[in-house]
Amino acid sequence: MHLPEMNDKGMPELLRFENIAWYEDGAVRILDRRIYPEIRYEICRTPEEVALAIRNMVTQSGGPLLAVQMGMVLAAKAAAGKPEAEQIKELEGAAAMLGQARPTTSAALGKLAEKSLKAAKDALSRGTSAVDAVFADALEEANARYARIGKMAQYLVETFPASGTVMTQCFAETIVGKMCLEIRNTKKDIRFFCPETRPYLQGARLTASVISDLGFPVTVITDNMPAAIFRKESVDVFTSAADVITGDGHVINKVGTFQIALAARWFNVPYYVSGEISRTHATAESVTIEMRDPDDVLRFRGIRTTKPAVKGLYPAFDVTPPEFVTGIVTENGIVRPGH
Amino acid sequence: MHLPEMNDKGMPELLRFENIAWYEDGAVRILDRRIYPEIRYEICRTPEEVALAIRNMVTQSGGPLLAVQMGMVLAAKAAAGKPEAEQIKELEGAAAMLGQARPTTSAALGKLAEKSLKAAKDALSRGTSAVDAVFADALEEANARYARIGKMAQYLVETFPASGTVMTQCFAETIVGKMCLEIRNTKKDIRFFCPETRPYLQGARLTASVISDLGFPVTVITDNMPAAIFRKESVDVFTSAADVITGDGHVINKVGTFQIALAARWFNVPYYVSGEISRTHATAESVTIEMRDPDDVLRFRGIRTTKPAVKGLYPAFDVTPPEFVTGIVTENGIVRPGH
Repeated sequence: MHLPEMNDKGMPELLRFENIAWYEDGAVRILDRRIYPEIRYEICRTPEEVALAIRNMVTQSGGPLLAVQMGMVLAAKAAAGKPEAEQIKELEGAAAMLGQARPTTSAALGKLAEKSLKAAKDALSRGTSAVDAVFADALEEANARYARIGKMAQYLVETFPASGTVMTQCFAETIVGKMCLEIRNTKKDIRFFCPETRPYLQGARLTASVISDLGFPVTVITDNMPAAIFRKESVDVFTSAADVITGDGHVINKVGTFQIALAARWFNVPYYVSGEISRTHATAESVTIEMRDPDDVLRFRGIRTTKPAVKGLYPAFDVTPPEFVTGIVTENGIVRPGH
Repeated sequence: MHLPEMNDKGMPELLRFENIAWYEDGAVRILDRRIYPEIRYEICRTPEEVALAIRNMVTQSGGPLLAVQMGMVLAAKAAAGKPEAEQIKELEGAAAMLGQARPTTSAALGKLAEKSLKAAKDALSRGTSAVDAVFADALEEANARYARIGKMAQYLVETFPASGTVMTQCFAETIVGKMCLEIRNTKKDIRFFCPETRPYLQGARLTASVISDLGFPVTVITDNMPAAIFRKESVDVFTSAADVITGDGHVINKVGTFQIALAARWFNVPYYVSGEISRTHATAESVTIEMRDPDDVLRFRGIRTTKPAVKGLYPAFDVTPPEFVTGIVTENGIVRPGH
């Protein structure tokens, strides 16, 4: 699946597969992961539109990271030709806005927006193109991220048996792709269970679709079934990514992760989480849990599921304490903080 | 909400509200609980159609109990006027079929089908109408069940604080209605959280709708959120009904119950289950866990949620061990077998 009518020269291979965000000809195109496997692109022509797309979950998982930097390319493009001080002012405004597009991961997004800003400022001080510099920096960052995640995938797949069953939770984008490629490399025989992850159904639409596209057998279950599956089937590993892993080992991830971790422990299934340990959040107390639109919970593709007076509530993440985490899979190996 | 154009004389008040199954003029009308709060009736003109409606989940929770007996009324009506031996043969066939309409609750359904059969045979031996006798027996049975559930509701509501929050799981039909009436009687101030219960969404469509209809504030969440809600909100009681409570205190109920019970224990929320302790199932080993159509998991109202090669799996129930159950609410009070 390639971006239609686009010059994807220089695009990392996995990004071509993922389509999470790409700048070209004055626009950032983002594959709308809310309705995938249906294919639709969000075309953003301003940094504000990119921030809105991130806020509205057009792209998820690692997608917002690249989208923020591609949004900064747009900002550099819009500012180009203006006096240098004005360009810097506009770029600083865009960085502040894009860095806050989602509260839970704002530390990571803010850092990348600052990195783009620095690349732009350096280019301007040298009298070279800020657009080219920010784009090159975004691509370098994406490639570095793919390399890091590739290493994580190697450590993660080492925890899988030669032949067995893995349950995921809302485990999409790069890490799933890299994990599947690594399973293929190591010739392991793995099948997957993916909870569907309501209300956005990322587990069914993204995780299961990517695993299936890469040729592995995968079964979708609803979010109330993981414990029943642990009881009925022999599951070897439960695994997820994380939006934040705190310094003391708490995992903030897609709501439902903690329930599955609780059930996994009951059935003696190890839980491995892949990600970087945050330098910003020492504990879970400093992490803002996003509350999203309650109406999403009460609907499926626009069909309301209950009576009008009934309310909804949508905490996007939950918090899994370190004692439920068997290991944190980082690019440097598997660690266990908080133990 | 009354049955349209029907003579509901003699119908228990709560049944008029529930519409779970009613015989009149040669047909059994069953409110289709799969799409409620959208209103549609399944009209069954033969015992086979009633069994199919039960198997296809047109009615759920306590619904199949009354539906089986109303199906026996249809069988008596179809047999009426034939030689007595032939009538009995047909009624025995209908009882065997209706009693096995759903595997997990077949013990309870079989017992009721046998009770209807006995009422019919007694009437035939006296030379009176088997149709009238089976109908009267079904109504008597329903009224007795409502009285028993009313007592359960009293004991259940005693576990609620004067003002507080209760989480339910797929807790529909009579017990919810009786619980709400009892809360009103005792003037308690209770709000509810209802997980939506995919794939059929009974929690959103039925439990939350009934609670809302009876005037209580209710919030629907997706099935991956109970642990997050326990963490974020102050929940006082988790409660569910059960399809089977085994002699040693295992709860077989709508899939997801065990996950919530695990999370409830982690957050020190008591779990009360309402129901009768089975005399048929001493342990969970003898209970057949229904595996339903996997396609239901992969769709929502016909919209497929993932790629074509992805499979589904649909265990309808899970098993909660006695150590996670704070108390079993029976018509005779709260008990704790297995402790």
